[in-house]
This record gives sequence, structure tokens and C-alpha cells, in this order.
Amino acid sequence: MVNRTDVAIIVGSGSDLPVVNETVKTLKKFELSHSLNIASAHRTSQYLKKCIQDAESSGVKVFIAAAGMAAALPGVIASETVLPVIGVPVDGRNLSSFDSLFSIVQMPKGVPVATVAVGSAGAVNAAILAVQIIAVGDESLKEKLKAYRTKIAEAVVKEDLKLQKSGIEKYVERLSK
Amino acid sequence: MVNRTDVAIIVGSGSDLPVVNETVKTLKKFELSHSLNIASAHRTSQYLKKCIQDAESSGVKVFIAAAGMAAALPGVIASETVLPVIGVPVDGRNLSSFDSLFSIVQMPKGVPVATVAVGSAGAVNAAILAVQIIAVGDESLKEKLKAYRTKIAEAVVKEDLKLQKSGIEKYVERLSK
Amino acid sequence: MVNRTDVAIIVGSGSDLPVVNETVKTLKKFELSHSLNIASAHRTSQYLKKCIQDAESSGVKVFIAAAGMAAALPGVIASETVLPVIGVPVDGRNLSSFDSLFSIVQMPKGVPVATVAVGSAGAVNAAILAVQIIAVGDESLKEKLKAYRTKIAEAVVKEDLKLQKSGIEKYVERLSK
Amino acid sequence: MVNRTDVAIIVGSGSDLPVVNETVKTLKKFELSHSLNIASAHRTSQYLKKCIQDAESSGVKVFIAAAGMAAALPGVIASETVLPVIGVPVDGRNLSSFDSLFSIVQMPKGVPVATVAVGSAGAVNAAILAVQIIAVGDESLKEKLKAYRTKIAEAVVKEDLKLQKSGIEKYVERLSK
Amino acid sequence: MVNRTDVAIIVGSGSDLPVVNETVKTLKKFELSHSLNIASAHRTSQYLKKCIQDAESSGVKVFIAAAGMAAALPGVIASETVLPVIGVPVDGRNLSSFDSLFSIVQMPKGVPVATVAVGSAGAVNAAILAVQIIAVGDESLKEKLKAYRTKIAEAVVKEDLKLQKSGIEKYVERLSK
Amino acid sequence: MVNRTDVAIIVGSGSDLPVVNETVKTLKKFELSHSLNIASAHRTSQYLKKCIQDAESSGVKVFIAAAGMAAALPGVIASETVLPVIGVPVDGRNLSSFDSLFSIVQMPKGVPVATVAVGSAGAVNAAILAVQIIAVGDESLKEKLKAYRTKIAEAVVKEDLKLQKSGIEKYVERLSK
Amino acid sequence: MVNRTDVAIIVGSGSDLPVVNETVKTLKKFELSHSLNIASAHRTSQYLKKCIQDAESSGVKVFIAAAGMAAALPGVIASETVLPVIGVPVDGRNLSSFDSLFSIVQMPKGVPVATVAVGSAGAVNAAILAVQIIAVGDESLKEKLKAYRTKIAEAVVKEDLKLQKSGIEKYVERLSK
Amino acid sequence: MVNRTDVAIIVGSGSDLPVVNETVKTLKKFELSHSLNIASAHRTSQYLKKCIQDAESSGVKVFIAAAGMAAALPGVIASETVLPVIGVPVDGRNLSSFDSLFSIVQMPKGVPVATVAVGSAGAVNAAILAVQIIAVGDESLKEKLKAYRTKIAEAVVKEDLKLQKSGIEKYVERLSK
Repeated sequence: MVNRTDVAIIVGSGSDLPVVNETVKTLKKFELSHSLNIASAHRTSQYLKKCIQDAESSGVKVFIAAAGMAAALPGVIASETVLPVIGVPVDGRNLSSFDSLFSIVQMPKGVPVATVAVGSAGAVNAAILAVQIIAVGDESLKEKLKAYRTKIAEAVVKEDLKLQKSGIEKYVERLSK
Repeated sequence: MVNRTDVAIIVGSGSDLPVVNETVKTLKKFELSHSLNIASAHRTSQYLKKCIQDAESSGVKVFIAAAGMAAALPGVIASETVLPVIGVPVDGRNLSSFDSLFSIVQMPKGVPVATVAVGSAGAVNAAILAVQIIAVGDESLKEKLKAYRTKIAEAVVKEDLKLQKSGIEKYVERLSK
Repeated sequence: MVNRTDVAIIVGSGSDLPVVNETVKTLKKFELSHSLNIASAHRTSQYLKKCIQDAESSGVKVFIAAAGMAAALPGVIASETVLPVIGVPVDGRNLSSFDSLFSIVQMPKGVPVATVAVGSAGAVNAAILAVQIIAVGDESLKEKLKAYRTKIAEAVVKEDLKLQKSGIEKYVERLSK
Repeated sequence: MVNRTDVAIIVGSGSDLPVVNETVKTLKKFELSHSLNIASAHRTSQYLKKCIQDAESSGVKVFIAAAGMAAALPGVIASETVLPVIGVPVDGRNLSSFDSLFSIVQMPKGVPVATVAVGSAGAVNAAILAVQIIAVGDESLKEKLKAYRTKIAEAVVKEDLKLQKSGIEKYVERLSK
Repeated sequence: MVNRTDVAIIVGSGSDLPVVNETVKTLKKFELSHSLNIASAHRTSQYLKKCIQDAESSGVKVFIAAAGMAAALPGVIASETVLPVIGVPVDGRNLSSFDSLFSIVQMPKGVPVATVAVGSAGAVNAAILAVQIIAVGDESLKEKLKAYRTKIAEAVVKEDLKLQKSGIEKYVERLSK
Repeated sequence: MVNRTDVAIIVGSGSDLPVVNETVKTLKKFELSHSLNIASAHRTSQYLKKCIQDAESSGVKVFIAAAGMAAALPGVIASETVLPVIGVPVDGRNLSSFDSLFSIVQMPKGVPVATVAVGSAGAVNAAILAVQIIAVGDESLKEKLKAYRTKIAEAVVKEDLKLQKSGIEKYVERLSK
Repeated sequence: MVNRTDVAIIVGSGSDLPVVNETVKTLKKFELSHSLNIASAHRTSQYLKKCIQDAESSGVKVFIAAAGMAAALPGVIASETVLPVIGVPVDGRNLSSFDSLFSIVQMPKGVPVATVAVGSAGAVNAAILAVQIIAVGDESLKEKLKAYRTKIAEAVVKEDLKLQKSGIEKYVERLSK
Repeated sequence: MVNRTDVAIIVGSGSDLPVVNETVKTLKKFELSHSLNIASAHRTSQYLKKCIQDAESSGVKVFIAAAGMAAALPGVIASETVLPVIGVPVDGRNLSSFDSLFSIVQMPKGVPVATVAVGSAGAVNAAILAVQIIAVGDESLKEKLKAYRTKIAEAVVKEDLKLQKSGIEKYVERLSK
């Protein structure tokens, strides 16, 4: 119970980790613990099953899975657990990422995957969604989410003030550096 | 506490209700209570805000929002609450439903929408995902989910047995009736 | 050995059977035996595994799997066997069938699915491809394939002769009946 | 009245400003005044509402909103005002920019967003469209538009003359420098 | 001056008129006068030019153009006038209406077309956008727009009340009749 | 020479003939002679080659080929002749007809196919394009084309007059009958 | 007559010239003369009309038009002449070039544009198609086309021989230099 | 018999060889012999036919064909042989590679192409699929496939262990080097 892990993250390939690093950083902001595994639905179905079972044993509450192309990973995890599974479509070089998005979101009746945006926005949002899910039964976490929302709102407003001061020319100049 | 509502469902238009009916029926199977409102993000932003606040006041744990076209509804709800928001893209006649799916899933960093499949599969899965989220803190609900999974698995196997008995000719014939 | 099955067909749902009926009929033309099961990758992963193992035990040489939406079925079978797996994307109502096609064809390195056309053309071609694969080691089957090719070629030529005789007006009229 | 602002530009993120700089430069050519704010529909719905109200108080005649991904910003502004709202889809890295274009243009009945091209062409055209709208009631501005059209036409013709003189080889060489 | 026409509507083909009928009905609600012509950019470029000039002579303030396929009509009108031009992509049978939408919205720098949604939603919204544009210089029309917004908001709320009373079962039943 | 055929039309399947009937009718309006064959690139490559050679022998000037799905027919004809080949993408039920359009238009350097619109518009335009090509060396045919253009322009104008007389209500009513 | 120009090339913008340079080079291989103009359908409709008329006066036989985005140029030229018009979709940064391809190919009945591949393959093929069209009435040009075909075929075969000699490793190495 | 070639690889252009190099390397791992030719369906139909016949004469069991754009090569090979043909869509710069994928996979009834993923994943998988097909009649090859599967599974697990040891920060750092 003491070392209970909150979120289990699984990626289909080591090459997905730069994107998923955003997920890890975001979870840390909320002081949620996580496990992280590389396990392919198509290449290591046994090992994947073991990762899922280990995660369930460690008391995990939510799964996050990131994969590209015919991204079966989130769906396969969803078929092995009744815990919520969040899917992050990883952007590939071909087919404009339609392949990973459609492979993750178009699940059949009875086995949903909670799909978020393609790429890095989705990687951050998978973490936030995991926090929101866990916060359903945790008021103090819900307060952290509200504080986070306030903070990202303030960041936008601050950016706007910076723009008002500097004007667009200097703002854009700074961006391009 | 007694009349606490579990899930708040909001649709952008009355014409989305046939699809969402699947959501309602599925929630009922799990004996979860729900509220259901028609409130458009673009036409009734005030009323929508009121619906969201009423839902939060009634102790709702998860939002489900269904909308078509430039489906802003799930995202706008997500911007007003830190509760999990599930988005169901409703299929329209144009653009192969890419419009509603992309409008719902491609949320910016910090404000996720848990997106499910387009149309009726998504409508059922939104309910299941809501149950899964609430079940994170509710072991008996988790048991119901496992039972549900067993049941849908058995239904597939039963269908397979029916096929083995009748053969494909008769099976297909029956389908077309 | 005597009752050895040649091809194992698996569909994700009973609703895919009208399409797959074309596969069955085409296999019969080549006097290949087949097994046919309904087993969902996402809803019945255990049962699916059993079907795959039973098929392998019965000496099957090729798998054919048909599925729609986030069509994980062919890929999951491919991950459980080293026999060739042919995938048929079943056409759905949304996303112009891009979802099932991309989910089946975009497999990661090491675990291919031999993908054929969407819908009924693919259903026939899955059978033909299975025959071609088995015929690699079976000259008499190769002869049957050549005869089949001659027959479909002759059917086209015959249709052309019909057109030359009747003229396009009458040909089109007959079609619309 | 004296300092009345003509056009209110709102972007969803500071990263949209390089594109929107084209809008600002084009408005300046027509000596129209503008305000410019960063305000996210999803992260700062309150602040956005304030920006809209401030803009309306300052007598603004047209809104221009630029956003990427699930670009709800133009639609949310349109739901808060009856002034014309022009939407610029910002090009992202995924989904071929279908997401921002469809999220902006596919508005439901009653709440239009005047959508222009994706990216920098749209950024210029948003300004021109704003000028055209304001010019409906301002003959001298209409004259400026006609002069602008003459100028861009002359620029094309001048480019053609340059091509006639230099020939394509040298013209292309110059381009690649 | 007395009979000044407010909005000139031009369609590329008589078959676009059922969709554009929504535009006409909506303009009438706001008591705006309109002219309506069938004139093809590709088949009747001279006649189209005449329609545009006649419309400009009659004091028209806004153009609305509806067309399908390689929908050049709105862009060609925009190249002949500095008045605002609103484009309505008409849905065709092929290419999921991507052809008409992209042909209308992707205008080059300097010659914008204010594009609205594909099909009937766009047809209504073209009218509303025209009203919004004309209302920039007409306070009483702006009041009508606010009243319209209130009315469509009330219609949604009323629909919601109906739903609360009848429940979803009866609501959906009524829809399907 | 006397019975020289002007245009050779080849379709991939008898089911393409209803669409191609438009091509035939249009060619007849210009009194051009044509041959018409069913010959599949994939099923009857020998017979197709024979059809191409027969057409060339009969002095044909232009080829028109219509096909759906992986529409190789126009490209294969183009690889066998240096005569102009016009390709008509036939609309199928899946993939929004992107398959036939892209298979026909995306030819590699050196072997063009002159591609026209998907479906019936393309079927008519293939004929017109064939006439235009033949008219390059035939002034009287060029005059017929000008007359045709005048006629289709007049038809649009006539339709417009009908609309002016009847009003949109009655016009639309008539259409729906 | 002596200086009669064979092909008129028109591009929508100077930035399209690098692509069109391939067209020019290919025409030169066949010793066909050409004119080349920059003229935008949307920005210089008058100047474009003049270019078309000048080209027709100079006895041009075929038009080639290249344009990107909402590529109206080829269609507008086609509406002003009964000569064959070849359209080259120029690849842009957004919408995967679907915009220029669809805007060019999806012409309405009666006014075809002979569309070729997107980008540089299309630029070469526009020239070849123009040669093929002119060669319909010019046997010596037809011979040149056959020689060209032989040459590009030999180039492929030669490349194959090079591959047989060097092996793939060295061949690929050479490519990457 | 001794020097019998197992797999014939044909590419449409020398520029496809970097991708196909993956196919060659993978076949070598399984000690299968191969031939490799450059032969274009559209530019060298005779030479292609010769390559196919030579391959058949040398006792080849499977064809692999890689091509981009309107990728007719795999389908044309499939029309000339009854051996299994595997198609690899090569990624181009335009149309998001939809053109090559759809041109290869959407084959008509009777003439299948076993299509694999776009680009390098497909290049590897074409080889694996060829091995799987040949292994249907070759138990020792089947054992090699099982060993290969074990090896790629172990590689994933090893990568996971590396991740567990280093942590994501260092893992990602190493990747970016």
C-alpha cells in the first residue's frame, strides 16, 4: 500500500519515449507515482500481459499507453483490464498520423480507450486525464488540478501582458531566437 | 448524498439523442444515475455553464458530451471543470466525420477530453469509460465491470457456437432478415 | 492429418459474416477446407487465443481475419503465430473505412499482416491469396489457380462480347434491372 | 470614439503570433487600428470573455481569431458576440491541418465563423476580409481596397515582365538564392 | 436607392438551390432583400460577370456564393469585387466534400472568401454572416441579431425542458417519427 | 480510313458502363465515332493489349479509360501507347473514391494520364476533352465545341431566367419531384 | 505562322516556376515552342484573359496551367478556351496537397481540365501530355514520343544493369551521396 | 534446382532501393536467396514481363514489389503470375502516401496483392511475410521464424530493462544523440 503505484505507463517502442517524457514530467507535478514499461502488443504479447498484471498487482488506478502506426497497444491493454486506459497516438512519418489516431480511438462496443491528442499535446493531456480520473475520489488532488488550471491560465494571461508591453514585432523576434 | 448523480450527459442538439440513448441504456445496466441535458456550446454558452455548475453541485463525477461538426461542446465543458470529460463524436453527413472527431480529440495541453469512437460504438463506450472511472474508487462497481466483460465475451462465444451449429449460409440468412 | 484444415478464418463480429461469406465461397471453389470462428481481439482475447491454437493444432496453413473500426484482430493473430495472416478491412459507416484499413496494414516491423482491399473485393481476394500461399508448395493447386485466372479472364471477354452484341444502351438497361 | 479600435485580434497561444504578424501588417497598410490579445478558449475562458467584452466596449467592428488543433477559439468568440468573427486555421504538425480547419469552419446553424485559408495566406486574408467588411459602410476604405487590388495585380504583372526579360532559368536561379 | 438590394446570392447550378433555400429563408427573417442568380464560373463566365456588375450597381453589400466540386464560383466573384464574398461548399457524392470545401477556403493572399460549413448548416450561416456584416453599420440590425441569438438559445433550452419532461425514450421515439 | 474510329473507350468492368454511357452520349453529340470494350488491366492483360492494338490499328486518336479502386487501367493503356489517354475515376463505396482518383492521376514521369473528375462529371468531361484534343487539328470540330459551350452557357442562363420567373420556392419544389 | 507557339504555359505565381521548369525542359526535348506567363486567376483576371487571348492568337494548341491551394487557374483558362487545358497541382505545405489536386480535377460537366500528378512528376507529364496531344496530328512528333519512351525504358533497364553489377549496398551508397 | 531463387524483388525505380534494402537484409537473416530488379510497370512493361518470367523460371516462390505514387507495379506483377505478390507502398512527398497505399491494396476481385505498411516498416515486413509464406511448407524455416520472434521479443524486453535501469531521462538523452 505504501509503495502503491498510481499510473502505469506502457509504450510500444523505445522511440516513443521522448513524447512520453512529457507524460512523466506532468505526473510528477502532481506527485503521482508511476511505472513505465516498453512492451509491444504485437512483438511481446506475453511480456505485455505480465506488465499489465504487475501493474494491477501494484494497485495501479489508470493505464496510459502510447503507440504509433497500427497502434494496437492501448486497445490490447483495455481488453485485459477494467481499469481506465488512456491512449496517446504517436505521430509517425506517413499517413498524417491518421493511422495511430484511428487505431486507438475506434474501439468496439464494450472496450473503450480514452483517446487524447496526437503527439506531445496528447502526452501531457494523458497525464492530466489520469490525474482527473484519480482525483474523482481524492479531493486534495482535485484542488491541485484547480491550482494547475489557475497556473496555466495565469501563464496565458502573463504571456498576453508580455505581448502588450513588447508589441508583436519584438514578441515574434524573441520567439524565433 | 442520497440523490447524488453519478454522470452528467450533455448533448449539443436534440438530434444527437438517438445516439446518446445507447449511453443512457449502458449506464442503467450499471445502476449509475445520470442527468441529461441539451445545451449547445455555441448557441447557449450561459445555459451550458449553468448545466455544468448544476451537475457539479449535484456531486457528479464524470461528464459525457456528444456533439457533431465543429464539436466544441466536450472541450468547453472540459475548460469549466476539472472532472474527467468524455467526448463522443457524432457522425454527420459530410467530411466523413473527421470534423467531429478532430474537433474533440485534438485538445491543447492542460485540458484533455477523453475521446471515444464516432457514433453508436462511442456512445456505448462513453458509458463504459465513465463506469471504469468511477470504479477506480469503487470495488463493487469494478466487479460489475468484470461481470459485464465476462458477459460480452460469452455473447461472442455464444454467437460463435451458433455459427458452428448453423453454418455461415444460415447465419448470414438470419442476419439479412 | 486426414481432416487437416487448410485455412482458419476468424471474424471480430457476427456482423462481418456477410462479407466473409465471399471468402468461404471462394475457398470452396478451390476445394480447400476451412474453419470459421467469431472471436473478438478486444472482447474475447482468451477465446481468440484458443481459436488460434486449435487452428494451429489442426494443421492450418494460413489465417484470414476480417474486422472493422480499430481492427486489431488480424494483428493480434499475427502476434500469436508465425503462419501467414491475411487481413480484410471491413467497411464501416464512419471515417470512410480509413480506420479499419490503416489499423490492419500499418503493422510494426517483424509482425506483418497481408492486407487486401476493403470490403467484398478484399473478402474474395483473401481467399485467393490464401490459395496462392498454399499453392507455393502444391503444383495441382497452382494449376487450379491458373484455371481460375483463365476463367475470370474469359468472363471479362465474354462480357465484352455481350456488350459488342447488345450495344451499351441495352447492356446498361439490363444492369439496372 | 476618437481611439475606437477597428479590429480585435485574438490568438490561442503565443506560438500563433508569427502567423498573425501577417494579419497585423496587412491591417496597418489600410490604417485600421487593432487590438491584439493572447487568450485561450480552453485555458482562459474567463479572460477570453473579458477580452471580447473589452473589444466590444472599444467599438470594435470585427474579430479575427487564429488557433490550431481543436481550434475552438473562433467559435467561442462567435458565440459571445454578434459581430463578424473571422477564423484563421493555424497549421500544426499532425493530421495535415485538417483538425484546425474543420474545427473552425464546421460551425452549427446560427453561429457562423468566416473561415479563411490555413496558415500565412489565411493570416493575410483575414485582414483583407476585415477591411472588406468595414468598407461596406466606408467608401474611402473601399477605394483603398480597389487600390490594393490594383497593386497586387500590378505586382503579378511586373513579376511576369521580369520573367519575360530574364527567362525561366535565371528567374528560378534567383528564387533559390 | 429605395429598392437597393442587400445581398446577392449566386449559385453555380440549379441543383444547388435546395441548399440555398435555407439562405434565402434566413435572410427573410432579418428583412434583408436579396437577388438570386444561377451563373457558373466555368460555363458562363461572361454572364457571371454581368450578374456581379448588376449586383454591384444595385448597391449590394455582400455576396453569397454556393458551389460544389471544384467550386471556383466564390473565388471568381471575390476576384471581381472588393465587397465581402461568403462561400458555401455544397456537398457532393464523392471525395467526402473535401473538394468543394478546399476549393473555396484555400484562397491565395489578397482575395479572401469567407467560408462557412458544408451543406445546409453553411447555407443558414452564410445568411447570418451576411446579416452580421451589414449590421456592422446598422445598430437596429445588430439588435435583430441579438434577438435571433436569444431565440435560438431559447429554442435549445425549450428543447431541453421538453427532454426533462418526456425523458429520452419518448423524445427519441418522437424524433424517429 | 473510311471507318476510322476516333476514340477508343475501355472500361475495367461491365459495372462501369452506366457511368461511361455519359461519355458515349457526349461523343455522339460531336459525331465522333468510338469503340467500346470491357478489358481489365489486372484480369485480362493479354486481351487488354489486343484491344489497345486493335484500337491503334483502327486509327484511333485518343483513349478513354474508366476504372474504380486500384484503377490501373488508364495507366497500363498509357504505358502501351503514345496516344493521349484520358482517365475517369469511377466512384466506389469505400475510401471516398480517393483510391481510384489517386491511382489514376499520380502517374510517374514520362507516362501521363489526363485525369478528369470522379464519376459522371468526369465521364462527360472525358468525352469533351477527347473532342478538344481531336479538334486541335480540326477547325470544324473546334467550331462545334464553341457551339457546345454556347449551348451549355445558354442552358445555365435559361435556368436562371426560369428561376427569376418562378422564384426559388417553386423552382425547388419542381426539383424535388 | 512561322513563329507559331505550340504550348502556352501559365502559372499562378512566380513561386510555381521551379516546378514548371521541368515542364519547359521537357517541351524543349521535343523541340516544341512555348510561351510562359505568370498570371493569377484571382488577382489578375483581366491580365489572365489577355494572356489567354494572346496565346490563342499566336496559334497555341494546348494550355498548361500550374497552381497551388484553391487552384482555380486551370479551370478559369478552360472556361475561356476550347483548346485542351492541362492542370498541374502544385504541392503546398498544408492539407497534403489535397486542396490543389481537388480544385483542379473536380471540374463540372462541359469544361474539363486534363489533370496530371502533384508536383514535379506532374510538371514533366504536363509537357509529355501536351506533346501527345499535338502529336495526334503530327506523325513525326509521334515518332519522337516513341523514341522518348524507348529512351526512358532503356534508362530503367540500364539502371537495373548497374544494380546487377554493383549490388544493392553500393547502389544505395551512391544514391545517398 | 541448386541455385533456385526464393524471392524475386522488383522496384519501380532506383530511388526505391534505400527502402528495399531493409527487405534484402531481412531475407538474408533467414538465408533465403533473392533476385532484385528495377523494372517499371509504366515505363518498361516488356522488361517487367521478362523479369517476371525469368523469376518464375528460376523457381521463385514469392514476389515482392515496392513502388510509390500510382503504384501499379505490384498489381501488374500479380496479373502475370499466380504466385503470391507482396506490395510495399513507398512513401512520397505528397498526398500523405495515400496514393501508393490505395493503389496497391485496392485490387479487384481475383487478383490480390498482399499489402504491408508504408515505407521502412513495410520493407522489413515484406521480407518476413515472404519467409512466412515459404515456411508454410518448410518446418525448419518455421523454426527460424519462431526464433526471430523470440529475438525481437527479447530485444523489446531488453530495451525495457535498460529503461528500468537508466530511467527515462537518460534513456531519452541517449536517443537524441
